[in-house]
Formats: sequence, C-alpha cells, structure tokens
Amino acid sequence: MGSAPLIVASNRGPLSIVAVDDGDDEVRRGGGGLVSGMQAALSAAPDAVWICAALNDRERGLARRATADGSARLSEVPAVADALAGDFDVRMLPIDALTFRQAYNGIANSTLWFVLHMLYEPARTPVFDQTWRRQWAGYVRYNRAFAEAIAAEAAHGATVMVQDYHLLLAPRMLRELRSDVHIGHFTHTPWAPPEYFRMLPDDVAHDLLDGLLAAHLVGFHTARWARLFADCCADLLGERPGPGLSVFPLSTDADELRERAFERDVNRALRGLRDTVGERTVIGRVDRTELSKNVLRGLLAYRELLRTRPEWHGRVVHVVYNYPSREDLPEYREYTAAVERLAREIDDEFSTDDWTPLVLEIADDYPGSLAVMRRSDVIFVNPVRDGMNLVVLEGIVLAEGDPAVVLSREAGAADTLGDDAVLVNPFDVSQTAAALHEALAMDDDERAARAARLRKKAVALPPAPWFQAQLDALAQLSR
Amino acid sequence: MGSAPLIVASNRGPLSIVAVDDGDDEVRRGGGGLVSGMQAALSAAPDAVWICAALNDRERGLARRATADGSARLSEVPAVADALAGDFDVRMLPIDALTFRQAYNGIANSTLWFVLHMLYEPARTPVFDQTWRRQWAGYVRYNRAFAEAIAAEAAHGATVMVQDYHLLLAPRMLRELRSDVHIGHFTHTPWAPPEYFRMLPDDVAHDLLDGLLAAHLVGFHTARWARLFADCCADLLGERPGPGLSVFPLSTDADELRERAFERDVNRALRGLRDTVGERTVIGRVDRTELSKNVLRGLLAYRELLRTRPEWHGRVVHVVYNYPSREDLPEYREYTAAVERLAREIDDEFSTDDWTPLVLEIADDYPGSLAVMRRSDVIFVNPVRDGMNLVVLEGIVLAEGDPAVVLSREAGAADTLGDDAVLVNPFDVSQTAAALHEALAMDDDERAARAARLRKKAVALPPAPWFQAQLDALAQLSR
Repeated sequence: MGSAPLIVASNRGPLSIVAVDDGDDEVRRGGGGLVSGMQAALSAAPDAVWICAALNDRERGLARRATADGSARLSEVPAVADALAGDFDVRMLPIDALTFRQAYNGIANSTLWFVLHMLYEPARTPVFDQTWRRQWAGYVRYNRAFAEAIAAEAAHGATVMVQDYHLLLAPRMLRELRSDVHIGHFTHTPWAPPEYFRMLPDDVAHDLLDGLLAAHLVGFHTARWARLFADCCADLLGERPGPGLSVFPLSTDADELRERAFERDVNRALRGLRDTVGERTVIGRVDRTELSKNVLRGLLAYRELLRTRPEWHGRVVHVVYNYPSREDLPEYREYTAAVERLAREIDDEFSTDDWTPLVLEIADDYPGSLAVMRRSDVIFVNPVRDGMNLVVLEGIVLAEGDPAVVLSREAGAADTLGDDAVLVNPFDVSQTAAALHEALAMDDDERAARAARLRKKAVALPPAPWFQAQLDALAQLSR
Repeated sequence: MGSAPLIVASNRGPLSIVAVDDGDDEVRRGGGGLVSGMQAALSAAPDAVWICAALNDRERGLARRATADGSARLSEVPAVADALAGDFDVRMLPIDALTFRQAYNGIANSTLWFVLHMLYEPARTPVFDQTWRRQWAGYVRYNRAFAEAIAAEAAHGATVMVQDYHLLLAPRMLRELRSDVHIGHFTHTPWAPPEYFRMLPDDVAHDLLDGLLAAHLVGFHTARWARLFADCCADLLGERPGPGLSVFPLSTDADELRERAFERDVNRALRGLRDTVGERTVIGRVDRTELSKNVLRGLLAYRELLRTRPEWHGRVVHVVYNYPSREDLPEYREYTAAVERLAREIDDEFSTDDWTPLVLEIADDYPGSLAVMRRSDVIFVNPVRDGMNLVVLEGIVLAEGDPAVVLSREAGAADTLGDDAVLVNPFDVSQTAAALHEALAMDDDERAARAARLRKKAVALPPAPWFQAQLDALAQLSR
C-alpha cells in the first residue's frame, strides 16, 4: 500500500523525454488542456501521483534508472524534478518495448480504435488470429502493469482516475488487487453498438466490458456513447451498468488557449497565411491525419461546392492543416496519399492565375494550425465518428471574426453545440457541400448571433472543472 | 384496377430469357426453392400474377413486344406461354437499361446490400455525392414502375407480396396509389442497427424505413433482423412498427432438392470429387463469390487448423466451391483474387506428393456444388452477416453421412440450427479453426445425434408453407 490519495493513470503522461542536439535527454512538459486541467486537482492533493507509460527507449531508460534508484518516482531524478509542473509526482512505467508495441499499436490503435470508431472494412478486417492473440496478451500485460503500479501507490481509500481505451482492463484488475480504492474511468473515444462490438472475440468483448464495469464511475463525453456502452453490457454481459455511468462533456480552456495562440510564432504564421489568402473567405480545418477525421470526404464536399456554386470561385480558400499521426500504420499512409492526390485534382480543376482554391499542409506545425483557427471564417470539422472533437471548440474560441461552423453530427461536440452549428451527416458529401454554402452565405446578424452562443458553449466545461466534476461524482457515489 | 387477387413482386422473376446457339431467345424457368414455393400459392389463386423486372436487353425486348401487343402479360407471348410453370401469369417490366443499372447495381447491390450487411469501409465508403444521387433517382423510378404496375394489375382487395431490398420504397408508393390492397414485404437480407443505418442520407434513410412501414406485413428471417428494423424506425423516424412486423425463418424443400441432387450430372461430378479426395474427411463449403460470405477468413481458419493441429495433415481436404457473383463490381473481383492468392499460399505451405489439402473451384457449376454438399463430412459456412443462408440447410439435407456443421452466428440460420451446429464468431479466425477441429474430432454418436436434429431443423419451414404462412398472417392482420 502506498501513500497517494489521488492517482491519474494514462498511457501518455504529463512529461515527455526528447533527445536534444548534444545527445542528452531533455524533459518537456506535455501540452494540451487535459494535462493542465488535471494538474490543479493533482496539486491540491498532497502526494498525488500521475502514472503513465514510458513511450520510447529514452523514457524506458529513464524510468528504469528511477526504479533502480530504489524509487519509481520521477521527482527523484534530478533532471526531471524541475520539469514537474504542479505539486505532484510522476511515475513512468518501464513497460518493455514489445509489450508496449503490442498494447499500443496492435490493440489500442489498431483494434480498439477501429472498433469504437467503426472503421473496419468487415469483408477483410479485423482478423482475430494467433498473431492477434499475442498482441492481446501484450495489452493484458500492459494493463496489469498499470493495475499493479496503481495498487502499490494508492493510499487506503484513494481515488484513481483511469484514462481512455488503452486501459479498459485496468479497473477490474485494480479492483481485484485493492477493494478499498475508488475507481473512475473516462473514455475519450466514442463507443460502438453491440452489433459492431460483438465482432471482437467473445472473451475479449467480455473482458473489456467487464473491465470497465469494475470502475465505480464510468465516464463518457456524451449520452450517446454512454447509452451504447450500456447496450453492449446488456446484450453481451446480460448486465446493466449501475449509477456510475455518467456523462462529462469536456470543453476547452479559453484563457490558456488564447495565451498560446497569441505568441510570436503564431502571429508570424498568421501573417504568412494572410499573405496567401488575402481578403478571401477562409474555410479552415485542422486535424490529425486520422482515418476517422474524414478529410477525404471533406475535400470531396469542397469540390462539389465549387462545381455546383461557381459564385464562390475566386472568393473562398479552403485551408487544411493536418498533422501527421500513426504513420507506422500502412492504411494511414495510404489515406494521406489519397488526400494529397485529391487535393491536386481540385487544384488542377479550379485554380487560376490569381486564385488558389485549396491550401493543404501536412506537417507538425502547431503554431500554423492555431493561425488557421484564428483566420477561419468557416470552421469545418466532419469526422465519421469522434468522441468529442476539441478542435472545433478551439476554433470557435480563437476565430477572430464571427465564425460559422459546419460540424459532423457524429462528433460528440455536436451534442454540445447543437443547431448553432450547421450539422451534417459526414458520409453525405452533397449535404456537406450544401452546408458549406449555407455557412458561407449566412447573413451577418445570424452568424453573429450563432457565434455568440457557440462561444459560450465552447467553454462550458473546461478541463479543470470537468475533472473536478468527476472527482465530485465519484465521491458522491462512494458515500 | 386489374383482376389479380394475388401478386408477387420481385426483381428477378420465375422466368429468364437466354440466348441459345441459333441466336433465338429461349425461355427458362427459374430455379431455386423460392420460385417453386411461391408457385403453389400463385397457382391456387385464379388470375394471380408475378411481376418482375426485365434483367437484360433480351428480356426488355420481349417485355416491350408483349406490351406493344396490347398486353403486358407474358402468357400471351407464344414462346413464353409454354415455359410458365404454374397456373399464373408473369409480367416483366421493361425498365430502361440505365434506370435498371442505377437501381440494381448502384443502389440495391452497392449501397443497400453494403448497409444491411455492414460491409462498408467507413474511412472511404460510402460517398453520397451528386453521382450517387442520380443512382438513387433511378432506384426511386424503378420502385415507382413496380408500384404502378402492381396498382394496374391488382383486383380490389388484392394481396401483394413484395420481395427484398430492391423494392423497399414500393410498399409506400403502392399504398398511396391503392389504399384497398393488402401489402406484405419480405426482406431476405439482414438489417443494420441505427448507428449504421444512419450513414445513409437523412431523406433516404427516412424514405426506406417509411417505405417498408407502409406494408401491412413486414417479414424478416429472424427476430434479430426484425428488432434492428424496429430500432431503426424508433431512432430515425420516432415510430415503432405495428403488429405486422413478423418473423418467418425460411428453410429448404428436401424433396425438390434431393431430386435435383441425384440427377446424372451431379452423380458424375460426385464421382470426380471422390477420385480427388479419396477416403479423406471433407470440409465442404459452397458460396457465391460475395464479400459477406467470408471465404478469406474461412481459408485463414483452415490454415490455422493445419498449422496448429498437424494431426489432420493428409487426413482432411477442404473443398471450396464458389460461383461467380457481381463480377462487375471491382471490390468483388479484388476479393476473389485475394481468395485465389491465399489458396495458393495454403497449397504451397502444406501440399505433399500424395495430399492436396485444398480444392478451390471458382465456377458456375451447380451440379459440382451439389456434389460437394453430398460428399461433405463437415459443412462450413461462416458469413460475416447473412439474412438466412440456405446453403447450410441444403448441405445438411444432402450430406450422405452424418455431417457436423461449423456455422457463423451472424447468419440467420444460426437461429434455426442453434447449438447443434458449432457456432463461431466469423471474425475470430482462431475460434473458427478450433471449431473446425471440434467438428472433425466429434465422436460418431455425438455427430449422429446432432445430425438427426439438424436434419429436422433444416426443413422446418420450406418455401411453400413459408409463403403460405405469410399469406395467412396478412389475412389475419387485415381482419
């Protein structure tokens, strides 16, 4: 038994170790609203710990050195202590490279991500064979490593907040080790209906649902994902989740985001973007190069807009910033190549001497993507399925005018923004093209009125109160 | 208003027109248990009519000649009258080639089939754009042509039995033209859950569900498909189907099937097969080359069986008969090529001088496929999703020994056969390999006891009583 009254467990932690020019390790604080949102609560609880996985050889080396020192805490590694942001410690688990690859690439990103986003091509994928079973064994070991580390750190009666689809088995494993702790789990992805979830091998589907059911609080971004999880439990386990099944729709922290978005590198990127697009109306989108984000149909819809509404020729520019993601998976590389091909086709069909209809950047360019958000007149986000989608909320906060929003109804954010966005079926390219036209043509009063409401909704539950609300709910359930 | 008291409407009719050597048309009676099953009821009702589409230029020519004669009935075309099997007439609709292609290939087989079998690869397909909308307009025209033809033929108070996913809009269209007729519809495919069905454009999803809801009797093969249809209506229309939603699990007509399966051409094919396989145990499967039939994972499971259970080397032969289907769709051609590649790999890995582990025939060879059914010791059917799957029932009826059955739980037939088959998750290749081993290793008493029960279940509701049960249910509902 340990001394931590509050533990966060997630695959990626609040620190990362990167190589710098002289070959030394440098410790960087993780970005993103979620990290800073959790920090407040962690700092308020003395001896709180964030448990995460070492993501690469450097981090594994560091984690092993910490462990060899007789301590598993990074605060006792001199180079790291300075980088710890809040008043809490970090324990990085030196999970071996094979287990990590099996759990992270093989199961979390290639199986669970595909099931929960319904991305398979069922005539061919998934294939659950012996090779896949070895990866599943890695996922089980990875979850067990977390459960054991949590069990070792947790004080009597501690609160443990487990994050996301990488750690669906951990709540059950932890509960078997430590019946005294209070376990919350939050799933940041969507969930799938039973007819889809049952593609998984029977024992695996059972263990995943049962693993999550062991958490006292099971959180999702929307009522829709929570209902689908409950449907899976009812159909596949014959059991309904208890009162711990809850909905916490995360939104964005406007202050922190604005602070970053007005730094010098973003201002510089914005000047460059203004030179490119001039006074034209900008349809902006920012995504990872991720199959679920639906950039391909987004470009098809833009092409259909230009084909059917020539009045926009010369007056609009579609700016697409994609930061590379999961390039180790061949279907992701092929998808990105298809996006680049289609972008060239659109350019060939429509561009003129003085008009470039489409700007596509595939690069890890965070300042550039913030600049796109600031300059967007229409924010365009059309995933086929998305747990929440914070980018659309960030775009609303950062847009310098009154933005109109075209948003997939299959994103959790559609529940938050409702009809103040122009909602679309992401598979319906013609409807999406019509929605882009509607957004472009919206009169100023209407757009301003909607934008005012959208700005409120975009910051309804920022990370810190979102996390605190879960802690409160879990405390309530434990009484 | 016409004179027919009973009308069957389906894409494919009970007759087909083929070119014979001298260039003339020859009229052939359609095969299949369904045609003969409906014939009895049609023949019992004076002036009954079967309305179908002309499927090719020859049939369109014939249908137009019939119409030009002042009659739309094929019985008045001399060459055809002789071929009419029962005491009923056939009206073949000369739907123009473009409309037919749009409705049949573009919508029924490339959209509805994919939705209802959940076969899409959502990162890329479907794409509902302007091109697709033109195809949808063809599907609407095709359904309207049927509705109008039915309205013209139906006597006052007539009974109209509409078949399958080609004609989902026709019930609503017909009901608006003729409020006095009693409409039944039967869907031979599975149905999809609302989370999947809502991929369709909103108006299209609405019209399909509403079209079917207009039928007084809405029939499916299993309670599962009926429930999913009801879920779609509740989620997407806000409406629950009435008491007309019913389940009629079709089975096979043993007498008719056996008669055909002991004709000379089948006996000849069986002798050839016996020469090839000798005394070895045969795992037999017969399918169309259809994405949903899952031949690829079936071969992977057989490979895993041979890899993990070397005791079967030399003792088992897997005989796979595929008859070509939908070769005009590129994804079908690519899938078949992948099946052929994997078959060669298995042959390369395991075959010896005196043992061929796998026989794959891709050919339109009906006698050959009946021979496979007669010679099968293990019947293997593993579709990813299947309305019913009559092949597994036919295999049970025809197998000359006591067959063991390995069957996908995602086929409607799994509801009929239950645990007397070894049921598998079709995506779980390892489980399927273990099921093949279980079937091969099953002791004689167990296999005989199961086979006896399976033979009863396989003929529980043959086509004629299946169709009559629907007519009775519709009459009951109309009172």
